[in-house]
Amino acid sequence: MAAVNLAEMKSEEFKEFLNSFDTVLTDCDGVLWLGNTIIQGSPNAINFLKKSGKRIFYVTNNSTKTQKELLSKVVSMGFNASKEEVVSTAYLAAKYLQEQGFKDKVYVIGSTGITQEMDMVGIKHTDIGPDPMPGALTQLISQKLDPEVKAVVVGFDEHFSYPKMLKAASYLARKDCLFVATNTDEQFPMNTDLIIPGTGSIVRAVETCGARSAFVVGKPHSYISDFLVKTHKIDPKRTIMIGDRCNTDILLGKRCGFRTLLVLSGVSTLQEINSWKESKDEELKNLVPDYYIGKLGELLPRLE
Amino acid sequence: MAAVNLAEMKSEEFKEFLNSFDTVLTDCDGVLWLGNTIIQGSPNAINFLKKSGKRIFYVTNNSTKTQKELLSKVVSMGFNASKEEVVSTAYLAAKYLQEQGFKDKVYVIGSTGITQEMDMVGIKHTDIGPDPMPGALTQLISQKLDPEVKAVVVGFDEHFSYPKMLKAASYLARKDCLFVATNTDEQFPMNTDLIIPGTGSIVRAVETCGARSAFVVGKPHSYISDFLVKTHKIDPKRTIMIGDRCNTDILLGKRCGFRTLLVLSGVSTLQEINSWKESKDEELKNLVPDYYIGKLGELLPRLE
Repeated sequence: MAAVNLAEMKSEEFKEFLNSFDTVLTDCDGVLWLGNTIIQGSPNAINFLKKSGKRIFYVTNNSTKTQKELLSKVVSMGFNASKEEVVSTAYLAAKYLQEQGFKDKVYVIGSTGITQEMDMVGIKHTDIGPDPMPGALTQLISQKLDPEVKAVVVGFDEHFSYPKMLKAASYLARKDCLFVATNTDEQFPMNTDLIIPGTGSIVRAVETCGARSAFVVGKPHSYISDFLVKTHKIDPKRTIMIGDRCNTDILLGKRCGFRTLLVLSGVSTLQEINSWKESKDEELKNLVPDYYIGKLGELLPRLE
Repeated sequence: MAAVNLAEMKSEEFKEFLNSFDTVLTDCDGVLWLGNTIIQGSPNAINFLKKSGKRIFYVTNNSTKTQKELLSKVVSMGFNASKEEVVSTAYLAAKYLQEQGFKDKVYVIGSTGITQEMDMVGIKHTDIGPDPMPGALTQLISQKLDPEVKAVVVGFDEHFSYPKMLKAASYLARKDCLFVATNTDEQFPMNTDLIIPGTGSIVRAVETCGARSAFVVGKPHSYISDFLVKTHKIDPKRTIMIGDRCNTDILLGKRCGFRTLLVLSGVSTLQEINSWKESKDEELKNLVPDYYIGKLGELLPRLE
């Protein structure tokens, strides 16, 4: 029984549904807000769930914000949240390196979100920002690499450039060099005619010239769940993942044994889900959520 | 019977081998020269084959040189060649667009090799060179796209940058926009500790944010063979492909029904070939050449 509309659930069933989880992981953009606009009803719904005793975690693939910056946004949007409930992939990347006992220096393709999280746990890193092509390839090749670098971390970087590809690939050729990516989202959903490339396109470029696959800390890869199980003792069987993107949020839930709830206020559509349901491709079937609802705020009349 | 050492072939068999083809496609870097250094004996061997009546084509994945520039290099290295025998992927990309009856404008990620070939056949294109990130993403997003663009061509571009990714992805979202890549080589073989990212890493980035696959004109994709069959009436069954890279040169030959000869003066090694021979993976088995030899010059004593 997949993709049940919560809005049409009978009262008894809805009560059972509510009692089936005690931890809520919620994606942010597309579920709680769109860019800088609150999705009406989402704060009240999440705050209600928290008040009724559910644990809440805000999990986002966004690598440009530190945990602290993400918390500021969550709170300013009206969510009753505290720091440890907020998990960004910049934060996770630093945590992962810390777990590995990493003592060397990181070559960062990314933004201040990543470098500030590394500063917070005392991990050395290279500078971020523009690294444009010097006059000619011979000049680029004559630049010196940093002998201390033993890890490459790739997140969203609007200053991504050919020299950064060359340096990342060259560091990745070093013995025992770690390779971490924050996430693999191909595009950013934005209200514009333009297509805004996401971290995933940068990661694929570096994976290709580096001839290696990155360890990805973001959704739909299971590290984020492993981290929450280990650090916050969540119970996957008693956890629900709420998201708007089936190939990140819902797939994470399926892989980690969570229940899954899709909101239709973001990227994925009901039409897609119905076509995946009918598909014979197991990978597509795996994108179908257990439950769906138009937007989180529609839960409010049923919760109260 | 695969991977026969030509140096150990009996005289009768070698004669049969020579009579089995009348067209020779030869890769350049790693077969004829290494960077700017001639591989000793290669010019004499190729010139001898030509004098004995074989048709020769120089086929390279390099997208930075025009057909004319490549011819200059071939001739300066001592090969007795004429223009129509020289096929670069910059030239092929322009030919492909011409074949499609393309009348609009091309957004080029690449170098003068590509734009000059387009000028030659009267195809309009955008400017090449640096396109660095303006101050902020909002500034980038406010830049206007070119309304005429209806194709994206990706080749080697040392000025590859995030703004280029965004523009390419946005053009690719247009209805009927063509998407052509010169080649998909992941890295450049170079005599340096550094890893020099090849066109393939740039192509993967654009394919990922554009959510589309490129039409590739270079090896090992069969367009290059289709072009030679159509334009120069070569007979694949009577053609041999000589190369130093199994995953481009030899694979092209296998896909197009050519005989294949690996020279060990470049990227691929005898050790790799022996391991692929034993493999149960059909894709790896497909990389094993029919024949091999240390370097082209070693054919000379047998030819003369």
